Amino acid sequence: MNPPEAHHVVIVGGGFGGLYAAQALGTAPVRITLVDRRNFHLFQPLLYQVATGSLSPGDIASPIRAVLARFANTEVIKDEVLDLDPHTRTLLLREGTLRYDTLILATGSTHSYFGHAEWEPFAPGLKTLEDALTIRRRILMAYELAEREPDERRRRALMTFVLVGAGPTGVELAGTLGELARATLTHDFRHIDPRQSRIQLLEGAERILPAYPASLSARAQRDLERLGVTVRTRTLVTGIQAGCVSVRGTAGDEQIEAATILWSAGVQVSPLGALLGRRTGAPLDRAGRVRVQRDLSVPGHPEILVVGDLATLEQYGAPLAAIAPVAMQQGEYAARLIRRRLRGRAPPPFHYFNKGTLAVIGRNAAVADFGLVRLSGVLAWFIWAFVHIFYLIEFDNKLLVMIQWMWYYFTRKRGARLITYEEPALDTRVAQSKPGA
Amino acid sequence: MNPPEAHHVVIVGGGFGGLYAAQALGTAPVRITLVDRRNFHLFQPLLYQVATGSLSPGDIASPIRAVLARFANTEVIKDEVLDLDPHTRTLLLREGTLRYDTLILATGSTHSYFGHAEWEPFAPGLKTLEDALTIRRRILMAYELAEREPDERRRRALMTFVLVGAGPTGVELAGTLGELARATLTHDFRHIDPRQSRIQLLEGAERILPAYPASLSARAQRDLERLGVTVRTRTLVTGIQAGCVSVRGTAGDEQIEAATILWSAGVQVSPLGALLGRRTGAPLDRAGRVRVQRDLSVPGHPEILVVGDLATLEQYGAPLAAIAPVAMQQGEYAARLIRRRLRGRAPPPFHYFNKGTLAVIGRNAAVADFGLVRLSGVLAWFIWAFVHIFYLIEFDNKLLVMIQWMWYYFTRKRGARLITYEEPALDTRVAQSKPGA
Repeated sequence: MNPPEAHHVVIVGGGFGGLYAAQALGTAPVRITLVDRRNFHLFQPLLYQVATGSLSPGDIASPIRAVLARFANTEVIKDEVLDLDPHTRTLLLREGTLRYDTLILATGSTHSYFGHAEWEPFAPGLKTLEDALTIRRRILMAYELAEREPDERRRRALMTFVLVGAGPTGVELAGTLGELARATLTHDFRHIDPRQSRIQLLEGAERILPAYPASLSARAQRDLERLGVTVRTRTLVTGIQAGCVSVRGTAGDEQIEAATILWSAGVQVSPLGALLGRRTGAPLDRAGRVRVQRDLSVPGHPEILVVGDLATLEQYGAPLAAIAPVAMQQGEYAARLIRRRLRGRAPPPFHYFNKGTLAVIGRNAAVADFGLVRLSGVLAWFIWAFVHIFYLIEFDNKLLVMIQWMWYYFTRKRGARLITYEEPALDTRVAQSKPGA
Repeated sequence: MNPPEAHHVVIVGGGFGGLYAAQALGTAPVRITLVDRRNFHLFQPLLYQVATGSLSPGDIASPIRAVLARFANTEVIKDEVLDLDPHTRTLLLREGTLRYDTLILATGSTHSYFGHAEWEPFAPGLKTLEDALTIRRRILMAYELAEREPDERRRRALMTFVLVGAGPTGVELAGTLGELARATLTHDFRHIDPRQSRIQLLEGAERILPAYPASLSARAQRDLERLGVTVRTRTLVTGIQAGCVSVRGTAGDEQIEAATILWSAGVQVSPLGALLGRRTGAPLDRAGRVRVQRDLSVPGHPEILVVGDLATLEQYGAPLAAIAPVAMQQGEYAARLIRRRLRGRAPPPFHYFNKGTLAVIGRNAAVADFGLVRLSGVLAWFIWAFVHIFYLIEFDNKLLVMIQWMWYYFTRKRGARLITYEEPALDTRVAQSKPGA
């Protein structure tokens, strides 16, 4: 343990950015305090697998204390930042205050309803473990209710799933829903055929996965269609109510009756970005991200670093994507910066090294973009699986996820199809709403 | 699929009794409908491992539809029974009605607060997956709060855990808490030493595990004490408030200040027992269990069978215990009875074959009673682990649980230590209550 007078690094947020920074500083001559509202690190890229019953919450979450337990210079506090004073270098937490010498902010982002917060109860997004379990419950309940629904039209609405936004999360959710309907649930029901489910993936842009090369978007779309997903690009959502989405597409306005509507569009950063703007005058972009310097610091405050989704930084003329690899590399850079500064040296600016982007559509189907090499199909799927297992934080999680994927790969069974924490009022309302009536 | 005019067996409850009955009837010339409020079968004997962060909910729960999918004569309904009419042989469900030719009731039991329902919010019991996650959250939150509590006395209360009732669940919970404190959490905190936790196991009877032979009770008590658990027998709970248990023991009255109080005493059967009593005049015992005939039927109603915890039946002058093996054998017997009756034959009465009783205290420590042979220690632990994996319903669950136990066995890590679904009001109240003040 380093003496109390050691340089004190406070890290806010235990996602990829914060956790990688903490791990990289674990052997440095500094004191570290990591603050997070939750007691676990969540492996966000696999959250949609919890939402579709493939994995359990424990498989993709690791207790932060356990991950950092081996670093004697590191303390973990389960708390929330309410305010910060850059002059006295103090954070106000819900329970007490905390002084820092260097501050690393890594509180990430959530989904944005583009000013339509009223859509949220009808179209939940996917950011927390609780979100994932809510979505899992709604998907499974829709089939339970459809099995017993005598009315043809309402049964059809119960078996219709609309996903808003075709970024990686929307595409992966749609693909998994397609597999759920066409493989996993096939023999579970007596009065409905889950293969007749309608899965509609809506995207405002010209094509799905707009951040990927066009050839991979096209391949992903073909794979999704093979799984029974209807892909609708250039389609904007104009309204959401219980059981009904209003869209404006290339063929005019339309109402889609669907008991299950899931939100996978938009990004809204943590309110800490706006707070930092008010307290330090840090410049923000339109989505509220902090425009950091090339060394990830806030202008005029070299002791405040922002990493991950909360920050925005241009490289080769375009802002870096809000994805896990960027956050990991920025967290590690922030640690390197602090180590060098303590030795009185200035580090080179941050540079993101793009190892490639991946998205999975289903068993044997994924797309991968490694710059010069672009892959799709089985090979991309295996690379996708390998990479995700490799980056899972703890060894037992790697093992558990690998086994469940192998199990699924060979049997197409999904073991975690549990309906928990039922909301009687809401589920009944969804069941009883007469879409379009 | 059997024709609609086939003999219709309705099974209420997808626990051990109901599920084993359904599986044993899967190839019989009958139509089967299984009704359960939940969409999954829960492997109750391992629920305490979810409550202590060793296993994830998905590891011990199996979707009922998936388990029964291969039986074309079986339909699963997610619903709840509100009433029954034995004359028209009709069940009233929340959504519709259901006619039966033979009815198997297997809705089990929950814990009983002996007329003190007001204790429940302060001392949660362990019967559902949600209960287990509530208990897990409270245990982990107590340590989080203790880590930041400057006041000596309140910190002590936060690190005190009281378990009421020393049947198998109480003993297994206490043992696991002891291991959590003395092995798993050792390096996680900077300001507290989890090894100083106080774990108090209270039991009103003369000894713990009163249903086991005295020699095994004594051995279990020694094992628990080795893990730092204080065992207090002949101790009655006279009151429970937030953060405080009042007890009357051999040394007089006392107040124990404890932020975490867990309830593992008492059994209260499902309200369907009382309903059956009113509608058919079926005799009930004091706890509300249905006194069934030797063929598990209700007197005067050979077409109504009751199995598992909801039933009570004497064998060799003592009532059969409310444990999983009895429910499994009764479920299978009910299926055999129906098959024989369809062939016009009368079956011999039900006879429970006791394969032995097991309870686990910790790594390398368990007690086993096989009648002539009594075991404890490592061998009993291995038998315990093997038996539980053997009886888990699905193959993937067996694999997942085995891997996590092996992982724990060698590293003492518990991967599922997640605080989810926080209740700010309640957690804060527990934190702020000044026990004894």
